[in-house]
Amino acid sequence: MTKPTLFPESGFRRLRADISYDGTNFFGWAVQPDRRTIQFLIEEALSKIARIEVETVVAGRTDAGVHATGQVIHVDVPQDTEIDNLLYKLNRILDQDVRITAIAEAPEAFHARFSALRRHYEYRILDDNQVMPPLARLNTAAWYRKLDLDLLNHAGSLLLGTHDFVALSKYREGATTVRTLEKFEWYRDEAGFLIARVAANAFCYSMVRNLVGAVSCVAEGSQSLEWLSALLENKERVSDSMVYPAHGLTLVQVDYPDAAGLVEFAKNSLARREEESN
Amino acid sequence: MTKPTLFPESGFRRLRADISYDGTNFFGWAVQPDRRTIQFLIEEALSKIARIEVETVVAGRTDAGVHATGQVIHVDVPQDTEIDNLLYKLNRILDQDVRITAIAEAPEAFHARFSALRRHYEYRILDDNQVMPPLARLNTAAWYRKLDLDLLNHAGSLLLGTHDFVALSKYREGATTVRTLEKFEWYRDEAGFLIARVAANAFCYSMVRNLVGAVSCVAEGSQSLEWLSALLENKERVSDSMVYPAHGLTLVQVDYPDAAGLVEFAKNSLARREEESN
Repeated sequence: MTKPTLFPESGFRRLRADISYDGTNFFGWAVQPDRRTIQFLIEEALSKIARIEVETVVAGRTDAGVHATGQVIHVDVPQDTEIDNLLYKLNRILDQDVRITAIAEAPEAFHARFSALRRHYEYRILDDNQVMPPLARLNTAAWYRKLDLDLLNHAGSLLLGTHDFVALSKYREGATTVRTLEKFEWYRDEAGFLIARVAANAFCYSMVRNLVGAVSCVAEGSQSLEWLSALLENKERVSDSMVYPAHGLTLVQVDYPDAAGLVEFAKNSLARREEESN
Repeated sequence: MTKPTLFPESGFRRLRADISYDGTNFFGWAVQPDRRTIQFLIEEALSKIARIEVETVVAGRTDAGVHATGQVIHVDVPQDTEIDNLLYKLNRILDQDVRITAIAEAPEAFHARFSALRRHYEYRILDDNQVMPPLARLNTAAWYRKLDLDLLNHAGSLLLGTHDFVALSKYREGATTVRTLEKFEWYRDEAGFLIARVAANAFCYSMVRNLVGAVSCVAEGSQSLEWLSALLENKERVSDSMVYPAHGLTLVQVDYPDAAGLVEFAKNSLARREEESN
């Protein structure tokens, strides 16, 4: 099996694929023994086309139940891999709950994970004990209390910027929890659903669902804005009871630099990362 | 078990319930032995509340795979049935792919089927071989050819009015196939989905899916408007190959007269229907 490297090895070319999935019946992105995962299905399909076992690199690993409309991966395949009609061929192999929406040769120095500038997520809630429309249930979390839209937005704005989000992430040994939250905005659509748009350079494990839980406590009136600010100063993780469920979450977009930016970025940042990881 | 009657029997009161469901995992509305059907789940839940086996009357029977956001039923329950918090109690009993969205004592002379003035359906298509977003796949039919929006609307307009729709319905012994098609309009939403809005006083079995198939033949360029007009004159059913799949179809609304209209309607039409059915 090929192992991911920073740049494609000699005799290989790098493809970028954009992927959409309904996370309901998957145990998340990452391959696990005896579990149906998105990575497993994608790599199985790509390996058939490449005629060699390939391994993908993903922009944002998603948990069990989380959806994506704009996931991005790269994969290195042998130079002689036939890439005509690749989109069609792969989607014929894949199950209908995961689709390749675009696939092409990646630009120079592209790395799905390290080149990513920013990840965008959406979180959908139906609040105030409203009846959940059956066709919306797969990607919408239900909440019994009414959530005040202005308070959601006010609370969200307090979390913007670069912080240690340790109190709002699931603990992982040795991993940094400093992130830059660039956007956290809410609106209510015509049908009454609350939708959050959240963007950061990167997210810690379980961070979006913790962010949603924290501002919801304020928006339902059970906690104050001061409580939220104090929470951000915490250096310990808070109770799990505040975490919203996985199925309300969707990875919608990953931003990358343009062609010139990718090369520049690789020269600086990627080289440094490789050094660090050695 | 109580049997549906035109008016509630002495000691009973009539409830109207509005129902929404994801038809994916149902064998349609109507009870069938050893099959999971919406009617079965609804009657099971209502019977628990009423403490007697009840039977529902539905506005529009839907086939396996067809969805609803605006289905309507009535049910007669004993006068002493506790109807406080009924919506909440029923939804606690029901599975998440079927929801009661409203339930209350029905107005005088209300009959879910016979009082209905008009049924509204929507049909969703993703055409031109576009990649189907996984979260849209449950209620959207895929079509590989591009469908011209103007032709869909032009073709649809030719079918409006009162006709014998025998050529555009699944044959059922002894049933009339004369219907009045009041609306058949298409639009393309921002995401590129084609959506039909179809309304008639009532629909024959499989009629909407046949209508969609017929205008699609015109809109993809494989048949002419003249072919469609001739089809409507046919007194025989056309090929099944033109029928679009069930999962693109959703019953969205049923129209009823206002309170005064219901009573007036019952006096005239319902009495006549009862005579006819005796």
